[in-house]
Amino acid sequence: MLTLFHYPLFAPCRFVRLAFGEYGEELALIEERPWMRRKEFLSLNMAGTVPVLLAEGDVPVVGANVIAEYLDETRGVLKRDRRLLAEDPLDRAEIRRLMDWFLDKTESEVTRHLVRERVLKPYMENGNGGAPDAAAIRAARANIRQHLKYVNWLAGTRNWLAGTRLTYADLAAAATLSVLDYLGEIPWRDYAAAHDWYQKLKSRPAFRSLLSDRVRGLAPSAHYANLDF
Amino acid sequence: MLTLFHYPLFAPCRFVRLAFGEYGEELALIEERPWMRRKEFLSLNMAGTVPVLLAEGDVPVVGANVIAEYLDETRGVLKRDRRLLAEDPLDRAEIRRLMDWFLDKTESEVTRHLVRERVLKPYMENGNGGAPDAAAIRAARANIRQHLKYVNWLAGTRNWLAGTRLTYADLAAAATLSVLDYLGEIPWRDYAAAHDWYQKLKSRPAFRSLLSDRVRGLAPSAHYANLDF
Repeated sequence: MLTLFHYPLFAPCRFVRLAFGEYGEELALIEERPWMRRKEFLSLNMAGTVPVLLAEGDVPVVGANVIAEYLDETRGVLKRDRRLLAEDPLDRAEIRRLMDWFLDKTESEVTRHLVRERVLKPYMENGNGGAPDAAAIRAARANIRQHLKYVNWLAGTRNWLAGTRLTYADLAAAATLSVLDYLGEIPWRDYAAAHDWYQKLKSRPAFRSLLSDRVRGLAPSAHYANLDF
Repeated sequence: MLTLFHYPLFAPCRFVRLAFGEYGEELALIEERPWMRRKEFLSLNMAGTVPVLLAEGDVPVVGANVIAEYLDETRGVLKRDRRLLAEDPLDRAEIRRLMDWFLDKTESEVTRHLVRERVLKPYMENGNGGAPDAAAIRAARANIRQHLKYVNWLAGTRNWLAGTRLTYADLAAAATLSVLDYLGEIPWRDYAAAHDWYQKLKSRPAFRSLLSDRVRGLAPSAHYANLDF
């Protein structure tokens, strides 16, 4: 079993857990709080970020995208119609574009800020978090709708977000939305196609471990783990 | 010939130009100013970012990492010992980690801010740039040394940054440093190993087109195009 250093409410970490889960591979999870800058962890990844996978031989593989490529090259390539990347280079490019959209763009415009202000700052162990920044929360919330609208459009026009099959694109989007849903930030009723697509994802076995995540001091939204929301 | 939408002083665009150059493939370059949010360009990439490659069939491939993977899958895989990615999955992961380091981490801690404050704001056509932010410039400059130190360490302990061969890792680092060097921000004398490695890169034919780039209103540093600097 491989080991993943992760933080439960970071979307890129959730994405990696979903991908391994879809391939039926268990991960040994180690919760890392990157802001503590733990020396042993920095020796694995001097950037100090999660996720980090300890691959075969305990070699660190750093970052969600890099782990996803490693997983595809070592497992996905054997999975035939369950592969989470396509075969065709242009189809692969579209899947990767959407991965970047959610794990990078949505992350830096919405998710990261809400997690920092609403989860990390209030509960940081060392008390160095400072007060939550109301303006940052407002700005992130103002950006949510544009991202939900995009998921809604993709889900409404394609079977799965990148086409006819479940791919990394779905897992990246679902990982992101699951964090925002934990925080109760998603007005599902305004986005019916996104809702139905997310419900389909949420019912998959790979999702179970995410739905049982809890962070200290902040309960999830009432419907977070509910499959009928 | 494929087409690349790019901006000359953005490191991720330069990285793509270097990669195609190393494979001896010419690109038709279209200079795009993403802050203008040109409608025709947004229809290719609704994120509005460069680089965007128009691949075979004029299908847009969005983002430096995604283009690099596409290039590897459609060209690199045939290049044997000139391939810019490794064969082994863990070696590939290390190359990708370094690509992310330079095109994402150095970009967001140093390069992007200096380009915005020193190049884009002073010369934006629409006059909406606002005044350069001296604090942002100071913060970016304070981060440069740590990144140069890292390149220096890698260049001093390995033949090339990711090991024994020229890879995407070298091109990502060189693209980034070439932007900072245009701006005269690199104290080369303090980083001898990085200097020698960069000199080796700079002498390669693929680098020529970068060295002849000029942006309006801002001449490059005196030694920018000089192979003996």
